[in-house]
Amino acid sequence: MTIHDLAVGCKKASIFMAALPADQKNRALAEIVKALKNNQNKIIAANTKDLEKAEEQNLDSSLLKRLKFDNEKIKDACEGLGSLILLDDPVGITISALELDTGLELYKVSRPIGVIGVIFESRPDALVQIASLCLKSGNGVLLKGGSEAANTNQILARIIYDAGVKAGLAQGWLGLLETREDVADMLSLDKYIDLIIPRGSNAFVKHIMDNTVIPVLGHADGICHLYIDKDADPDMAVDLAVDGKCQYVAVCNATETILIHEKSARELLPELKRALEAHNVEIRGCDKTCNIIDVKPADEQDWKTEYLDYIVSLRIVSSLNGALDHINTYGSGHTDVIVTRNKKRALKFMDMADTADAFWNCSSRFSDGFRFGLGAEVGISTNKIHARGPVGLEGLMIYQWRMTGNGHKVADYAGINARPFTHKVLKKTFG
Amino acid sequence: MTIHDLAVGCKKASIFMAALPADQKNRALAEIVKALKNNQNKIIAANTKDLEKAEEQNLDSSLLKRLKFDNEKIKDACEGLGSLILLDDPVGITISALELDTGLELYKVSRPIGVIGVIFESRPDALVQIASLCLKSGNGVLLKGGSEAANTNQILARIIYDAGVKAGLAQGWLGLLETREDVADMLSLDKYIDLIIPRGSNAFVKHIMDNTVIPVLGHADGICHLYIDKDADPDMAVDLAVDGKCQYVAVCNATETILIHEKSARELLPELKRALEAHNVEIRGCDKTCNIIDVKPADEQDWKTEYLDYIVSLRIVSSLNGALDHINTYGSGHTDVIVTRNKKRALKFMDMADTADAFWNCSSRFSDGFRFGLGAEVGISTNKIHARGPVGLEGLMIYQWRMTGNGHKVADYAGINARPFTHKVLKKTFG
Repeated sequence: MTIHDLAVGCKKASIFMAALPADQKNRALAEIVKALKNNQNKIIAANTKDLEKAEEQNLDSSLLKRLKFDNEKIKDACEGLGSLILLDDPVGITISALELDTGLELYKVSRPIGVIGVIFESRPDALVQIASLCLKSGNGVLLKGGSEAANTNQILARIIYDAGVKAGLAQGWLGLLETREDVADMLSLDKYIDLIIPRGSNAFVKHIMDNTVIPVLGHADGICHLYIDKDADPDMAVDLAVDGKCQYVAVCNATETILIHEKSARELLPELKRALEAHNVEIRGCDKTCNIIDVKPADEQDWKTEYLDYIVSLRIVSSLNGALDHINTYGSGHTDVIVTRNKKRALKFMDMADTADAFWNCSSRFSDGFRFGLGAEVGISTNKIHARGPVGLEGLMIYQWRMTGNGHKVADYAGINARPFTHKVLKKTFG
Repeated sequence: MTIHDLAVGCKKASIFMAALPADQKNRALAEIVKALKNNQNKIIAANTKDLEKAEEQNLDSSLLKRLKFDNEKIKDACEGLGSLILLDDPVGITISALELDTGLELYKVSRPIGVIGVIFESRPDALVQIASLCLKSGNGVLLKGGSEAANTNQILARIIYDAGVKAGLAQGWLGLLETREDVADMLSLDKYIDLIIPRGSNAFVKHIMDNTVIPVLGHADGICHLYIDKDADPDMAVDLAVDGKCQYVAVCNATETILIHEKSARELLPELKRALEAHNVEIRGCDKTCNIIDVKPADEQDWKTEYLDYIVSLRIVSSLNGALDHINTYGSGHTDVIVTRNKKRALKFMDMADTADAFWNCSSRFSDGFRFGLGAEVGISTNKIHARGPVGLEGLMIYQWRMTGNGHKVADYAGINARPFTHKVLKKTFG
């Protein structure tokens, strides 16, 4: 089957997926749990093949760790599906209701987007998570995973697809892409695919954007800042710097740059240096920083770098506005934190930091779909439209305007004797 | 000033626009009303130049009508601004609030998108409307109007910009583009511009999409359908066909194709023909239609055509599913109507028609921002993400996740002794 046929089939299926009642989607999710458990051995056998190949190719140990899909990971995936079943159906929610005139009512109702194309990295659990989020939200889905996980992805996609169809989902509701050429084909099918979610580096997301007219929900890099205000609690500031930088360095919500108000710098920098170096963090500081503590000098490139490593850049700023200027110039709009005791300054920071997640007195590492209570997540968006920050079920939804009348014609509302609209807010749900 | 400088300045200004209190934005809108009234003569003089040039170039009368910006139009524009002042501030609304743990609270708060680039047609009132919607929603805006209205747009932009700055808006909050080259430049400035809204034909919107990585909110063609079900009230069906097709033919929400259930066709078609032909509508029918009434034959191309004229295509379908297939194949996802007395069938139609506006027993012509109670509109979106159908202030908004803690670290929520999250919904607003 060509990717074109796959996409056409998925679009067709998506129309039926959009109209499914909640209990049928939940039955399909339960069927998938059963099938994953029943096929545990087959899944692990396929994953072993992928792991062996990766070892032969001397892929690094962190990749091997992400690639591994064992009993434990299957159990976790099934638990995730269990939580998803318990979530409310995101489809068909009345967002607003308005009377336009007697008997003429307008509703804004939540609906699935249609067909979502997701390109993700080598973790096979991502496939389970993304497929199930699309199912629950009534979308069709086309998936492309990392080539290192080809065998695991193939069997997972097959098991999930078959279990879904067995439980009444439409033929074609899920499709698996296997090669880079498949992805290139997918990007040209804007007639059938409504949204592309590429997970990966900024360069990768940019490459996707450059090669498609399909809307792209960017899951990109994170250059996250911690700004330590003049009114910051010094102990809290050091704690949050350590947690943000060191709790897990290889992730997009790790803190990469620390900004310090010049009034706090002299008191705080020595303690900050001690605490970060205790975690083997290399510090790169601006000129002013280097005058206070003995660290490597930072250059312009450091402000633009997502280290994903035990390295942090440090800059002294002369004001809250200076911190905001830095963040709005070098940040990636992912997560930015202010530490301060002053509420007014915290609110100003949030109002003027052009970022998805604006945090006050807590760690940048909290920006995550699970911690945000979204259940699973399809990614973290640094887009400025549609969805921002951690994206769960809600990010896979759009709305439809539904109007019900009794033969109402526009001609009656036009011209000299035009009937006026009532535009009265209704407290009712559609249907 | 280059377009690059204009965009950089607008981005900078947008940070301040986003943080403005409601009353200051309303004062700016009031200042603009005052300035438009005070400069009425200058505006009309500039518009007269545009009109004279258009007449010299023998531009058609409907274009001249749209281009005209006289006392009446200025009064209408000022009234529109007056209504906008009365609307609630869309910025800073708490969308959701969640306790993650004691003292750690997560809020989803509405925020402006940033910098919006709008390319619109020759109506100068569109400039006033779009600029004021962006102002009220706290966005920066770059505008490019039709070249026929160059003089009018120049003076309007100057008056609105100056009045805004006088009332305290940031320098650079509004920029006017004047040439096609300017637009090409704008499309490459994805670092500073967050959303492009092109108003115009499908081909034009497609051209914009092909030439930028900035998200595009498509304001495109409308191939709107009226489906007359077997359970339709025949008089209502004819009335809605006439209103949908004839009330104003040159607009995107006019009905272009009528689908009739085969059980209703024999009874309804003669009356439908009489009623439409009474309005000088040319009917193009499918083979089955031509067997019942004497009309021109339709071909495949007709199902794909937005006539914007006194022409309608007519097709007999064998079922509700057949109607949905036609709509989901040939429709543009703008507005589609079912006429039926059967609620179950109406709900199925809405659930399975892949369209922004799904209407039951009312005219397709109702899909419009003013009629929908949105105040003004920036356009009608046929996108499947972010905003769909008529787009008002809400479509110019995104949200920011705001978390407030008391030094909360992720390290405490990880590992063997991980603290659990409470994830308790809060009934409070941010701030």
